[in-house]
Amino acid sequence: MSTAPQHVTTGPIDGSRKIYDEDGVPTRRIELTDGTHLDVYDTSGPYTDGTATIDLEAGLPRRREGHAQTQLERARNGETTPEMAFVAVREGVPEELVRTEVAAGRAVIPANHRHPESEPMVIGKAFAVKINANIGNSAVTSGIAEEVEKMVWATRWGADTVMDLSTGADIHETREWILRNSPVPIGTVPIYQALEKVRDPEQLTWEVYRDTVIEQCEQGVDYMTVHAGVLLRHVPLAARRMTGIVSRGGSIMAAWCLAHHRESFLYEHFSELCDILRRYDVTFSLGDGLRPGSIADANDEAQLAELRTLGELTHIARAKGVQVMIEGPGHVPMHKIAENVRLEEEWCGEAPFYTLGPLATDIAPGYDHITSAIGAAQIAQAGTAMLCYVTPKEHLGLPDRDDVKVGVITYKIAAHAADLAKGHPRAQERDDALSKARFEFRWHDQFRLALDPDTARSFHDETLPAEPAKTAHFCSMCGPKFCSMRISHEIRDQVEAGMADKAAEFAAGGHRVYLPVAGS
Amino acid sequence: MSTAPQHVTTGPIDGSRKIYDEDGVPTRRIELTDGTHLDVYDTSGPYTDGTATIDLEAGLPRRREGHAQTQLERARNGETTPEMAFVAVREGVPEELVRTEVAAGRAVIPANHRHPESEPMVIGKAFAVKINANIGNSAVTSGIAEEVEKMVWATRWGADTVMDLSTGADIHETREWILRNSPVPIGTVPIYQALEKVRDPEQLTWEVYRDTVIEQCEQGVDYMTVHAGVLLRHVPLAARRMTGIVSRGGSIMAAWCLAHHRESFLYEHFSELCDILRRYDVTFSLGDGLRPGSIADANDEAQLAELRTLGELTHIARAKGVQVMIEGPGHVPMHKIAENVRLEEEWCGEAPFYTLGPLATDIAPGYDHITSAIGAAQIAQAGTAMLCYVTPKEHLGLPDRDDVKVGVITYKIAAHAADLAKGHPRAQERDDALSKARFEFRWHDQFRLALDPDTARSFHDETLPAEPAKTAHFCSMCGPKFCSMRISHEIRDQVEAGMADKAAEFAAGGHRVYLPVAGS
Repeated sequence: MSTAPQHVTTGPIDGSRKIYDEDGVPTRRIELTDGTHLDVYDTSGPYTDGTATIDLEAGLPRRREGHAQTQLERARNGETTPEMAFVAVREGVPEELVRTEVAAGRAVIPANHRHPESEPMVIGKAFAVKINANIGNSAVTSGIAEEVEKMVWATRWGADTVMDLSTGADIHETREWILRNSPVPIGTVPIYQALEKVRDPEQLTWEVYRDTVIEQCEQGVDYMTVHAGVLLRHVPLAARRMTGIVSRGGSIMAAWCLAHHRESFLYEHFSELCDILRRYDVTFSLGDGLRPGSIADANDEAQLAELRTLGELTHIARAKGVQVMIEGPGHVPMHKIAENVRLEEEWCGEAPFYTLGPLATDIAPGYDHITSAIGAAQIAQAGTAMLCYVTPKEHLGLPDRDDVKVGVITYKIAAHAADLAKGHPRAQERDDALSKARFEFRWHDQFRLALDPDTARSFHDETLPAEPAKTAHFCSMCGPKFCSMRISHEIRDQVEAGMADKAAEFAAGGHRVYLPVAGS
Repeated sequence: MSTAPQHVTTGPIDGSRKIYDEDGVPTRRIELTDGTHLDVYDTSGPYTDGTATIDLEAGLPRRREGHAQTQLERARNGETTPEMAFVAVREGVPEELVRTEVAAGRAVIPANHRHPESEPMVIGKAFAVKINANIGNSAVTSGIAEEVEKMVWATRWGADTVMDLSTGADIHETREWILRNSPVPIGTVPIYQALEKVRDPEQLTWEVYRDTVIEQCEQGVDYMTVHAGVLLRHVPLAARRMTGIVSRGGSIMAAWCLAHHRESFLYEHFSELCDILRRYDVTFSLGDGLRPGSIADANDEAQLAELRTLGELTHIARAKGVQVMIEGPGHVPMHKIAENVRLEEEWCGEAPFYTLGPLATDIAPGYDHITSAIGAAQIAQAGTAMLCYVTPKEHLGLPDRDDVKVGVITYKIAAHAADLAKGHPRAQERDDALSKARFEFRWHDQFRLALDPDTARSFHDETLPAEPAKTAHFCSMCGPKFCSMRISHEIRDQVEAGMADKAAEFAAGGHRVYLPVAGS
């Protein structure tokens, strides 16, 4: 088959090696030149394990087994599942915290019984902030091999989940390759494939949609975006906006409602949909089909009306035992961000919030990874559980492999900044290790501890490529004489010497706090 | 002279042209394909004026005249200076607002009488958030021609001020070329050149420093970073830190204090320094020599002790009629950012805050423009008046021309996001214009309205380079069938047609709100 992927990126990240605990929980160990190491959360699966054999045709090893109940139902029953135990180790938190958060619906573990290749992970505000990378072809560009490599590449750099948003050719087959080779949960938007089958939004039916959902559940998709909150009565609200409807699924459903002048079949059949997802333990990602696509439309009536409907659907799904997260905006100026989290928590029973960005301004196409990282860091600080990345190509074209990496690293920054601000117990360890390496001029360690060691090293080496510069007490930014950290070391030595002098003086003085004044 | 600059980047930004009002206040007019235009703040000087003749040897035309008093003194006297009138037009605010903010010390207009080439601008929280770009060579790399081009290049993309931080060869001559050709205020850190003269921090004296300051005042430097808040008693506090002292000037002064075991000559001679700066109306940028260089050191005792001292110095300088701004951190996690602004305003009499970033995490060398833009947007939202950019090379090497552009655009994003969040009266105009162009598939206009039209266009054209794609109702991200905005247009048309139907129905029904129920 000519489109089958032949090769993906493998091998350890520079300076790291993969280790597993007795239960097979993976960790990336960053080895430092001072003899210490730092262990960090690892999303990359066997691809970064130098000892693993990768066979894309065969797929990854199957690690998990199915069960008659969902994680939510089992958590409510007081059971700590193997998946809960696994994520507790990954997060460095008690198993009971995982179980109670899942039981309350404040966290989800997206793990379809039919995706046994994935390594369980948890999405919830009590845990480290997660990031999702969108991949998938369009009718204009890309194919299966590129998309499988993007999945491996995204998880290499830290994507916690991947959504396959393919809308071009070979949707089913592309997804099959991705699922069988993915170490992270895979999300989809089933309406894309349903539309592929009927070609025209107006021709969509509940039956076509339902069968597509079952097909994807059977295949192993872990979570699905369902735009069941776009109701007929919301459409006129959205039509008046600066940028209308910018969610693909949202616009399709709005067009359907309007064409038939009927209520959304997703809304009307939501209960049936819950029964299907429950069987596989597929998690709902209730889509924000009416998310704002511009600063002008942020927090408007259309957006908030849909959010209220998502709250209603959340309670139906939970009653059915189905895990739920809620998708969020979009484009939101900074002063309107916190309100989004507050309303989502209030109306949707604290279901994990999963936001796209949001972009804090519209004026920088080409840099929307940055406009959105500003918003993403803030919304995560306010309580968002997972951030959907935005790449530099947003609004302009389909991201390529390089864009995927920039998007992932940018979002790891936003997520980590939020973890720091929220006081996540492990977050500052890495900052401290890197800062210590920086202050001690252990350049190799500074690179290894970086989110992207390759880029950090190459930037340094542009001006000072020789090996001795890797322990030099300066870089090309300030040069040797003006290096503040070199001077700081001298100051520290002097202060410490001074303290030693004072201590000696103190000892000689018979341990009196005040020395006798001369002549008194 | 072999090092003299021969060439800098000139010509309009794509899709824009330069216009001037009757008083010579420049504006960039973005011409749109629908016959409208948007005027935006323009920092780029004559270089983007297609009709201007640039002669680097001769320098820019001299626009301003000297005066016996500073802007602060004149504002206090009730005078609206030509500089205040100029910036009021640029900002779109009443002249009286500018005057009262300057009089209160909440805003500064850095405009040395000896830098008549510059176009006046204002820094203060009541106005648009400004950004500074650092340039300058180091002992390891770069020269005069590169640095003059970096200045022109940085202001082309929106730098409101430029600091020449050269520490390598030809410091005086480099600065002369930059000053004579700069349309924006130029800042320096005089201790770098003072150190260049004596070679060793311990050999620094007040006299050498004073003479260097006078030399730079005479030359036309508009604002100067003075690390007069690094006191002998602060040094032990900083020596205990994770990353010591990371400010070059701060480390030099700390080393001097410690070597001589004497109070800082900058602190002891501060009053005399005020008299010198006052004569030229040079603005103090009171340096944060003890700013944290890591998340671990943020908001620590050393940093806050220095900030209190800067407050004391602010009041001395203001009493002498000298304009003052205060420099800020550094590296600060998000939850500690607002506290920085609060303390600065309280202790330093609301002097404009001018912050470096701050970086919201330490773990992404190579991406510190992004780690810091996250912090910069937040600190600007909280009231910071000017943001000092950070480039992707931070911590790794000297930024080149490409890095300068990425740093400037990234910081324009952060500043604009804050302007939006603060409700600056003009901020949302550009977002709305761009979003409207996006929704109407006016691709050329979307590019022109972008902060970086060249990058936006090139990203789009990677997959769809042909001219017809510039009006196509889709891009390669989703392809033609899945374009939500195309579908939105159809929805809008239908809703509007529906409204028209309803209106016709309503009119036919005799303007009754409730139609009679059939059969009733």
